[in-house]
Amino acid sequence: MKVNGKSHRTIWLADDGVAVEIIDQTELPHSFVIRRLANMKQAAEAIAVMQVRGAPLIGATAAYGVALMMHADSSDAALEGAYDTLLATRPTAINLRWGLDRMVGVLRSAPAAERVALAYREAAAICDEDVAICEAIGDHGLGIIERRYQEVGRPQRFNILTHCNAGWLATVDWGTALAPVYKAHNAGLPVHVWVDETRPRNQGASLTAWELASHGVPHTVIVDNAGGHLMQHGMVHMCIVGTDRTTRTGDVCNKIGTYLKALAAFDNDVPFYVGLPSPTLDWQLSDGVKEIPIEERDADEVHEITRQGVTVRLTPQASGAANYGFDVTPARLVTALITERGVCPATAAGLAGLFPEQAQR
Amino acid sequence: MKVNGKSHRTIWLADDGVAVEIIDQTELPHSFVIRRLANMKQAAEAIAVMQVRGAPLIGATAAYGVALMMHADSSDAALEGAYDTLLATRPTAINLRWGLDRMVGVLRSAPAAERVALAYREAAAICDEDVAICEAIGDHGLGIIERRYQEVGRPQRFNILTHCNAGWLATVDWGTALAPVYKAHNAGLPVHVWVDETRPRNQGASLTAWELASHGVPHTVIVDNAGGHLMQHGMVHMCIVGTDRTTRTGDVCNKIGTYLKALAAFDNDVPFYVGLPSPTLDWQLSDGVKEIPIEERDADEVHEITRQGVTVRLTPQASGAANYGFDVTPARLVTALITERGVCPATAAGLAGLFPEQAQR
Repeated sequence: MKVNGKSHRTIWLADDGVAVEIIDQTELPHSFVIRRLANMKQAAEAIAVMQVRGAPLIGATAAYGVALMMHADSSDAALEGAYDTLLATRPTAINLRWGLDRMVGVLRSAPAAERVALAYREAAAICDEDVAICEAIGDHGLGIIERRYQEVGRPQRFNILTHCNAGWLATVDWGTALAPVYKAHNAGLPVHVWVDETRPRNQGASLTAWELASHGVPHTVIVDNAGGHLMQHGMVHMCIVGTDRTTRTGDVCNKIGTYLKALAAFDNDVPFYVGLPSPTLDWQLSDGVKEIPIEERDADEVHEITRQGVTVRLTPQASGAANYGFDVTPARLVTALITERGVCPATAAGLAGLFPEQAQR
Repeated sequence: MKVNGKSHRTIWLADDGVAVEIIDQTELPHSFVIRRLANMKQAAEAIAVMQVRGAPLIGATAAYGVALMMHADSSDAALEGAYDTLLATRPTAINLRWGLDRMVGVLRSAPAAERVALAYREAAAICDEDVAICEAIGDHGLGIIERRYQEVGRPQRFNILTHCNAGWLATVDWGTALAPVYKAHNAGLPVHVWVDETRPRNQGASLTAWELASHGVPHTVIVDNAGGHLMQHGMVHMCIVGTDRTTRTGDVCNKIGTYLKALAAFDNDVPFYVGLPSPTLDWQLSDGVKEIPIEERDADEVHEITRQGVTVRLTPQASGAANYGFDVTPARLVTALITERGVCPATAAGLAGLFPEQAQR
């Protein structure tokens, strides 16, 4: 998408054809900084410290991490080491494992001499496919927005609430939850986005607001507490969020706090949609609340906020804090899943209908 | 309650018998600063900028604001002017109007010469009654905590979730939601409090955490997004919150985000209680969502965080923000109301049973 009028992806091969470049998302919204990842460890570090984040982008970065490793050492041991190091960076997003498995699947049986070229080709394919997936989600989601816009009487401002960042910064381009929003905006619909700030890391306030502003989509930042009130007063026409892992039964693991918004949407008859690229599906799981591991991050993310090199402390020195990164929205609260193959109910049958080859494995 | 081993209230008459002193809550948790309110305008300003906040404390401060006005000018015009100025400081908490009506009720028919003494006496009475009300809420709530503690099998850590600050800093002493917690802690129950940080003003992280730490009650600060996840995983045994206005039918207006926690509690069979001093009841209202005015505050409270004189910007300069201060939790989501006269269902009949003389007016 556009930044200062120039099209960008979130990750791309550097001009030397070896290193990888990313937008450092920890510097947004105040600075637009491009970082160079020259080796696998830097790729792993970029994921761990969240210079890149968002389930699809994590998968893409991990794939390039494997390619960088192969460039340095294309042995079996190096491949296995890269797999383990990259897999350990973040626990919740299933795309990480998906991307790594796909890379290893291609590389393991190949001669070491061919692995470098194969790895870069596969990583590039993962990125291009992600863009195509997201754009397809955008097209299917556009249809939903258009129908809902008619249903609520073509308001002057059509209000969509989103949580965290599932925009193009969370993917290679377009985004998952926000792809339909961009498509609707580009088609001339009067969309306006309520942007949950998304504590503790404020991806909504920092990233979603920034990318919507950069593209010119009207939006308003709100605290995470506000969505229920807005929905009670008819000020939200629909919700769309992304997902870090979705079970075969339609339980949606996403940024902490998503579940609370889904409850409020359900309580107020506001449709609640999930933009779901199929690599984010975990076909092995049936019960999201019980089975999906939830990342616990450093308590300092709750205690402190740092922006532009300045840190403020929010809590008393004597107080502890806990920092759970994700929660699970049960399928019963989800109106429908928007995938690259179309829209389906958040049920095992719905997902199996769209992805029969995966469901039957 | 105790601060550094010394008992404090949140508001008291200064040694000169005229001025009023308060704890400046905008300086917490990092500095304990006492401010002197020497005239009515300073009292109004203290409410408006939230040096004092919390429905009961707002009512008490407004009462002293009237006394300060009477000390300067005990005319009818001055009384009416003080009423209007103080009432305009905050729109949502009903205690403000309650305290002002009570002061005017006492003063209007009195000769101007007697008004100063009467006003200080009535303001002091309002404060002392608030302390008694809160302590009674604490005693009734203690019974609820003791029963729930048995019911869940006497866990090693009994987890109570609260939102915003309805502790002693929100009242003159003891608190509403936290009075039962202090009583339970003092009685030796192993209570641990999940403290919602409560964006955008972070009263949980700043005030609730500070007062629990000062009193030695175990607690953990969490972001407002986290409570649903904790409840899904059995990590919350009960919720207790305060209220800024409650309708005669039991709809509870409280800090923005309370409704989302009540939804999660209901969805996970976690009891959800409200500490409700009777001056916070609005007997004229039947539908909280439709009828209670919700304060909209400055968007900069969402854009920026300032601590210890340092401000950080959270959002892009190009983004707008909205800042709704309160939401309404429908009575159907409230397990029971804990008042100074006992515990009742969140219904018109329940409240009328405890306060027949008010309900029949």
